[in-house]
Amino acid sequence: MKTFPWQERPEGNKDIMWRFSENPIIGRYDIPSSNSIFNSAVVPFEDGFAGVFRCDNKAVQMNIFAGFSKDGINWEIEHNPIEMKAGNTEMIVSDYKYDPRVTFIEDRYWISWCNGYNGPTIGIAYTFDFKEFYQCENAFLPFNRNGVLFPEKINGKYAMLSRPSDNGHTPFGDIFISYSPDMKYWGEHRCVMKVAPFMDSAWQCTKIGSGSVPIKTEEGWLMFYHGVINTCNGFRYSMGAVLLDLENPDKVLYRSKQYLLAPAELYETTGDVPNVVFPCAAIADGDKVAVYYGAADTVVAVAFGYISEIINFMKKDSL
Amino acid sequence: MKTFPWQERPEGNKDIMWRFSENPIIGRYDIPSSNSIFNSAVVPFEDGFAGVFRCDNKAVQMNIFAGFSKDGINWEIEHNPIEMKAGNTEMIVSDYKYDPRVTFIEDRYWISWCNGYNGPTIGIAYTFDFKEFYQCENAFLPFNRNGVLFPEKINGKYAMLSRPSDNGHTPFGDIFISYSPDMKYWGEHRCVMKVAPFMDSAWQCTKIGSGSVPIKTEEGWLMFYHGVINTCNGFRYSMGAVLLDLENPDKVLYRSKQYLLAPAELYETTGDVPNVVFPCAAIADGDKVAVYYGAADTVVAVAFGYISEIINFMKKDSL
Amino acid sequence: MKTFPWQERPEGNKDIMWRFSENPIIGRYDIPSSNSIFNSAVVPFEDGFAGVFRCDNKAVQMNIFAGFSKDGINWEIEHNPIEMKAGNTEMIVSDYKYDPRVTFIEDRYWISWCNGYNGPTIGIAYTFDFKEFYQCENAFLPFNRNGVLFPEKINGKYAMLSRPSDNGHTPFGDIFISYSPDMKYWGEHRCVMKVAPFMDSAWQCTKIGSGSVPIKTEEGWLMFYHGVINTCNGFRYSMGAVLLDLENPDKVLYRSKQYLLAPAELYETTGDVPNVVFPCAAIADGDKVAVYYGAADTVVAVAFGYISEIINFMKKDSL
Amino acid sequence: MKTFPWQERPEGNKDIMWRFSENPIIGRYDIPSSNSIFNSAVVPFEDGFAGVFRCDNKAVQMNIFAGFSKDGINWEIEHNPIEMKAGNTEMIVSDYKYDPRVTFIEDRYWISWCNGYNGPTIGIAYTFDFKEFYQCENAFLPFNRNGVLFPEKINGKYAMLSRPSDNGHTPFGDIFISYSPDMKYWGEHRCVMKVAPFMDSAWQCTKIGSGSVPIKTEEGWLMFYHGVINTCNGFRYSMGAVLLDLENPDKVLYRSKQYLLAPAELYETTGDVPNVVFPCAAIADGDKVAVYYGAADTVVAVAFGYISEIINFMKKDSL
Amino acid sequence: MKTFPWQERPEGNKDIMWRFSENPIIGRYDIPSSNSIFNSAVVPFEDGFAGVFRCDNKAVQMNIFAGFSKDGINWEIEHNPIEMKAGNTEMIVSDYKYDPRVTFIEDRYWISWCNGYNGPTIGIAYTFDFKEFYQCENAFLPFNRNGVLFPEKINGKYAMLSRPSDNGHTPFGDIFISYSPDMKYWGEHRCVMKVAPFMDSAWQCTKIGSGSVPIKTEEGWLMFYHGVINTCNGFRYSMGAVLLDLENPDKVLYRSKQYLLAPAELYETTGDVPNVVFPCAAIADGDKVAVYYGAADTVVAVAFGYISEIINFMKKDSL
Amino acid sequence: MKTFPWQERPEGNKDIMWRFSENPIIGRYDIPSSNSIFNSAVVPFEDGFAGVFRCDNKAVQMNIFAGFSKDGINWEIEHNPIEMKAGNTEMIVSDYKYDPRVTFIEDRYWISWCNGYNGPTIGIAYTFDFKEFYQCENAFLPFNRNGVLFPEKINGKYAMLSRPSDNGHTPFGDIFISYSPDMKYWGEHRCVMKVAPFMDSAWQCTKIGSGSVPIKTEEGWLMFYHGVINTCNGFRYSMGAVLLDLENPDKVLYRSKQYLLAPAELYETTGDVPNVVFPCAAIADGDKVAVYYGAADTVVAVAFGYISEIINFMKKDSL
Repeated sequence: MKTFPWQERPEGNKDIMWRFSENPIIGRYDIPSSNSIFNSAVVPFEDGFAGVFRCDNKAVQMNIFAGFSKDGINWEIEHNPIEMKAGNTEMIVSDYKYDPRVTFIEDRYWISWCNGYNGPTIGIAYTFDFKEFYQCENAFLPFNRNGVLFPEKINGKYAMLSRPSDNGHTPFGDIFISYSPDMKYWGEHRCVMKVAPFMDSAWQCTKIGSGSVPIKTEEGWLMFYHGVINTCNGFRYSMGAVLLDLENPDKVLYRSKQYLLAPAELYETTGDVPNVVFPCAAIADGDKVAVYYGAADTVVAVAFGYISEIINFMKKDSL
Repeated sequence: MKTFPWQERPEGNKDIMWRFSENPIIGRYDIPSSNSIFNSAVVPFEDGFAGVFRCDNKAVQMNIFAGFSKDGINWEIEHNPIEMKAGNTEMIVSDYKYDPRVTFIEDRYWISWCNGYNGPTIGIAYTFDFKEFYQCENAFLPFNRNGVLFPEKINGKYAMLSRPSDNGHTPFGDIFISYSPDMKYWGEHRCVMKVAPFMDSAWQCTKIGSGSVPIKTEEGWLMFYHGVINTCNGFRYSMGAVLLDLENPDKVLYRSKQYLLAPAELYETTGDVPNVVFPCAAIADGDKVAVYYGAADTVVAVAFGYISEIINFMKKDSL
Repeated sequence: MKTFPWQERPEGNKDIMWRFSENPIIGRYDIPSSNSIFNSAVVPFEDGFAGVFRCDNKAVQMNIFAGFSKDGINWEIEHNPIEMKAGNTEMIVSDYKYDPRVTFIEDRYWISWCNGYNGPTIGIAYTFDFKEFYQCENAFLPFNRNGVLFPEKINGKYAMLSRPSDNGHTPFGDIFISYSPDMKYWGEHRCVMKVAPFMDSAWQCTKIGSGSVPIKTEEGWLMFYHGVINTCNGFRYSMGAVLLDLENPDKVLYRSKQYLLAPAELYETTGDVPNVVFPCAAIADGDKVAVYYGAADTVVAVAFGYISEIINFMKKDSL
Repeated sequence: MKTFPWQERPEGNKDIMWRFSENPIIGRYDIPSSNSIFNSAVVPFEDGFAGVFRCDNKAVQMNIFAGFSKDGINWEIEHNPIEMKAGNTEMIVSDYKYDPRVTFIEDRYWISWCNGYNGPTIGIAYTFDFKEFYQCENAFLPFNRNGVLFPEKINGKYAMLSRPSDNGHTPFGDIFISYSPDMKYWGEHRCVMKVAPFMDSAWQCTKIGSGSVPIKTEEGWLMFYHGVINTCNGFRYSMGAVLLDLENPDKVLYRSKQYLLAPAELYETTGDVPNVVFPCAAIADGDKVAVYYGAADTVVAVAFGYISEIINFMKKDSL
Repeated sequence: MKTFPWQERPEGNKDIMWRFSENPIIGRYDIPSSNSIFNSAVVPFEDGFAGVFRCDNKAVQMNIFAGFSKDGINWEIEHNPIEMKAGNTEMIVSDYKYDPRVTFIEDRYWISWCNGYNGPTIGIAYTFDFKEFYQCENAFLPFNRNGVLFPEKINGKYAMLSRPSDNGHTPFGDIFISYSPDMKYWGEHRCVMKVAPFMDSAWQCTKIGSGSVPIKTEEGWLMFYHGVINTCNGFRYSMGAVLLDLENPDKVLYRSKQYLLAPAELYETTGDVPNVVFPCAAIADGDKVAVYYGAADTVVAVAFGYISEIINFMKKDSL
Repeated sequence: MKTFPWQERPEGNKDIMWRFSENPIIGRYDIPSSNSIFNSAVVPFEDGFAGVFRCDNKAVQMNIFAGFSKDGINWEIEHNPIEMKAGNTEMIVSDYKYDPRVTFIEDRYWISWCNGYNGPTIGIAYTFDFKEFYQCENAFLPFNRNGVLFPEKINGKYAMLSRPSDNGHTPFGDIFISYSPDMKYWGEHRCVMKVAPFMDSAWQCTKIGSGSVPIKTEEGWLMFYHGVINTCNGFRYSMGAVLLDLENPDKVLYRSKQYLLAPAELYETTGDVPNVVFPCAAIADGDKVAVYYGAADTVVAVAFGYISEIINFMKKDSL
């Protein structure tokens, strides 16, 4: 990475993670058709960055779009949604696509997203160049959301985190892991982490879901996730982090009892769905990390932090 | 009309409809008793404009008030609600009145509104001068809302659009048309348009309701309506348009798959009910149209457009 | 009537109304296609009786069927549902038909039922011979159920009782009256009676709906209706009676605080919907009355009583 | 099979399927610990029959028990639940077990059931002798119920029907098929059949779920399934049948619009959960078939029919 | 007691508790005004028994009535409800009364019941003769049900079990104890026992409530209580028992994991509210105990058992 | 009080109460651990002010903290929550603490709050110095919230207002009063005021709850309270006032039909729970009063008024 997206912690700020001062980095109307652009994923690509973006159009149809950036902050998003070709299957039905994640494994970029096939489930596709995309078998039966692949095989198998759901505004949700020898058949489903008791950590007491592709650190897989509390005025989404065991990612080493980021800025507390902070990607450069998150289901924003500080924060006050 | 309320499209703006730069034109406290003024209807009247306004008072009782304006932007609203006299019936019970519409037919101005009579139904009244109002029989049995009269008889009968409802925060709703020979007895109820499938046009997938009195164009009756999506943080109201057949307004010619206006400005995303854009009136002057809408159930705002562009927009991407 | 369906009150029985000892008179499988036969209406016809029956078939599709009887007890029901011809309209859409009522006015038999047209509303048809039926305009906008016509015009207009509803298992409901000069356009909607307070008469505290066509007595229109209480194990339907003013049937003279019949026999407490007693017709012969009711949404049963006793019962303990 | 469980159609009975006159064949208290025995599966075994039975104990804990019978009617059920050994995994967590199905594939009997692992999912086990059982990996992520294996591999892979669910009394549900090369990893998930529109076949309009292990016929795979309608007094479960394509069981050839059996007998309309007919197994002998079903979530009953008649019935009136 | 109500365990029956063969002992219509008689309490009185009975009348108003019996089986219930006089307060408002319990303390009989005062709360009254009753202050704020007094003071204070509730068909509920120095002011509220985890004892996983007045045994206070499971067809009420510490009744010594009695007989599975077994009183004579319970919210029934066996049963399989 | 917190009514402002121009006075992050600081109570103390503050931490755990101020506007809040010592009981379990109120009675400061003990109930504690706090018996059984003590004994007894609730986001709620001779046992529960009918005063039609400790005036006890309306986008909390009889505070003398303050400023309409104005304390100095309220469940704000004007306002338009 030549130009890592970064802004130093503001003076006087004592938070573990802090927001980019020019947030949001992508506005709701940044492509002609869009009503909102949010919950999107980015990765280093060639000499800059590429990403897959959730752009709901003005008919409020949900689809995913490719985009490119030199610096990770200023983005050019394609004006047309990704058109999928057949990957490991001919069955590439997709009633809708939303909330993409992207990760590089071995030789290609894998995209996972919430795919509409008789209800929400996890769609999978790969690309080499962010121009041609090949859609594969859905990972699971409906109903599922927030499928996130690990960036490398674990014990010889692909591994995916996901959150089993129902067919509406699911009022519950825990994070599971599943394995596949071939990206087609999945099994060995294990529960990784569950919602926290209301009295221990209420911001994540209603449901939780995987966010960013896990970052490999010496101490474990670092993943940013969202947690939800159900207030009398609706769901509120905040962001925490978890450290999973390198060898056996079923095992939670540390998990943030305190949130790292919760809706507080106006672009987070107002919008199509107020009070949402929803991480979908994280890029690391040494100890620095930039987390991309959807805000209020309307725009894309970035927050920064130091990985070592984040891990210490989790260790000091872990669930 | 001497002074049509109008402001040209801002430079660089590519939207089909755009907001008035001084929005909201009526604030929530613009009369002494009011908690909020919104969802209101205006018409050309004498050498200016008159209107009927929904002003909820500080006990949050709902009632309708007359108002007058020279330019359609600056309004003087009466400080006392309209007192109804008996029209074609002595039974003018009204537990509450809200969401008025106004149209001129033949020799007088007809008001329709949501009238409280053992639940919400459609109240009807007429006035010649916006000083004396004569209340008529309710059009329908409860439960109904958003009754909108056509500005002329169709095949010799009065015609009204409405949205059958239930007695709460109705989570469903389609638009029907009904006919009357005499403004007293109603029949020939037909379904005109239904909610859109979630995957086709999600902003109008939960319920839809008539908004403005239809404008007669060469191509059909142009009506602005609201559509609702149910998010995990509540209902979100946006505005679209539909073109109905001139002879047979049961028939939808074109209907906007994309919304024309959705909550995005702070006066639309915050207020007593966040994320509401709710059109109740439209005034046309040649190809120009000004749409009056309630914002966040709190204030009144205006948006502008060219009728020909709006119709083209509907034709190009119709449901 | 040559053979009025009747069985004297059993010895020792002190109830105002009592059940026929051979109940149910129509079983669930009495025609080859049926899953259940219930909520049906009968009238004197020629030298015996005719009726319109709700027979849900084994696909659980709801439709209405003609039937004939010599004695009002033993019935021959047609094996095919009624096929409607166009009456005062060409628009005779009917997604489903259920819960019919029948009454003779002037020169013909009128049928009203719950008609599926973009939700449940009130269908109307007439017949002279129970062979050919002519469907008319639906009386109202959806959502409505339990439309019951008076057996004669009142002040020169047709009059219909109905219960505005919503589009599901409506958890509320009051009885309204509406008038029509021509069976096509309806207006002058008035609320006749509402649910009772839980503490006064809990069996009718959740919703009420008209049942039988009103019987003209010297003291007023006698109508049997159903009332519903919502228990922790579902809705329970019982039967009461009301006496409406002859001249002005908006006006309730007496209304039974106590029920007349509530689910207690096994054919009422078990079946497709347990705990339902649902009256749809009443035939009078002098002071005697036979009330036909659906039981458990599965079969048809009959109960008997003396009109004078029923009116006294209502007078003595009226809501 | 020496002694196929069978009773000829009663005289005068014109139903496609009829009940055993001695139903229920297994009572709720037939083992000392049981509160209810229902939703159970049987197969031919050695010179008689074996089965896996859902016996809820008097603490209303759900578990599965082995049982044996000479004639398929009189059963000896073990007094202790099945104790699982590790099959293709060490992870054999099971918070509860219910609604088993059994099928013989190649060399062994496979059991599938609803297995409690952080919510309901599909458990799998095999046995050779109904004495030792080996539990394998759960087939899917939660939430799932009614997993039914085909009795042979299809295109070289195991195939399983299931019904994705949520974590409560799921108010929706369609039937999917999934494939596995090894009974461990599952993929190629396809939707096979969905609930019927209310107006076409209301008994199966709320949710449907696979019932018996499919029977191979010349015309296709014959499977008995349950359908549910949501009445104002709760869910009502009935039984229908579907014929799936032999080569490509994703494809529905015929599906019964009418139910084959719906709750009507007292042991079906009363019990722990009234109005439930829930098939879990079918044994065929030539053209004869015996279907075992749970009644009212309380007891086990049997119904009989001729396969050819059932297929004709489906062909004549198919969804 | 001269004539203890008792019937020996039927031959072959291995249940800990068994039903009286002549159940129900009180029918729904046993007094002229009643719709149902259930959830009632009895005590030894003079040379026989007295009781307080819940009789809902045919308007389904809930009230309590005195009754007397020589043998505890055959009862004469007063035809008019109890009229309360002022006890330790003038404020004896009672919108309704239901589910009484009775206990003798020191010199008088105390009645507790669910009393309507701006929602359900616990009413208290005393009588010396079951003719004159003196109503006292309600024990608690709404919302509460199932208040049961201990039959003697504990550590010098009156003690009452109760179940805090909400204002509808409460879907949750645990048992608390509270103390009072004077039957007027209450405090020292402690949680005694909570619902069981679904997987441990599902019949009591939704809510539990005190049933009978505790019986003093050498090993502790023996109380029969009800537990509820929420099925897809409504609540099902069963009966268990708990043994509380004599000195400190906050402390649960043993609690039945298995139910003692659950709805199975037709008078328990059908009626106004199917599937309800609801104990309200227990009379002991040596080791024998007779438990009076409401069945299906419709009638009163009795079950018998030996206290020593019941306690052993609890010890062997305690939650 | 040397320095009463006060700011004169802005010129042109005609409201009865007006906001402090520097609102909010306490920000959400004003102590290091906090996510939000709101719904807090203050009293004059020594030569300034002391208070008890609800600070939810970044794990969104709810607890109460002491704080001090010279001027009532600028506050120093302790960084650690209050640690309770045992007061009149050893049982000082507290799963969580929120929404405190403070009042001085006789010789000490009493704190009441919503205390987690098997659900929300009313916790009580006292302090002499805001350094050591002694927790007493909970006042009531769960479920209760908004317990507010009167600042002096009434007829020799302590008196507390409260709002019985359920265990979730309670959708109902009225205000009751209870009395205690000793702060340990409570009784004589009376209903003081109920929600207003929707048509009379919709802002308080869903639930109401006590707010500030009552202020003794010549005309009665003046208390500020909150009222809630349920919109399609959640609960909206506003503030009104009530005047209770000095001798018999069960008796409402006047009650504001119009609200005094409703969410309108951005710090009230956006935040963790949008549209909340929630008064918890009022300090009077002669005719001046400063009301402290939580805004949007996020920050603390202040509003001012003249007691005489407020009482006149209530008299002129009382419910």
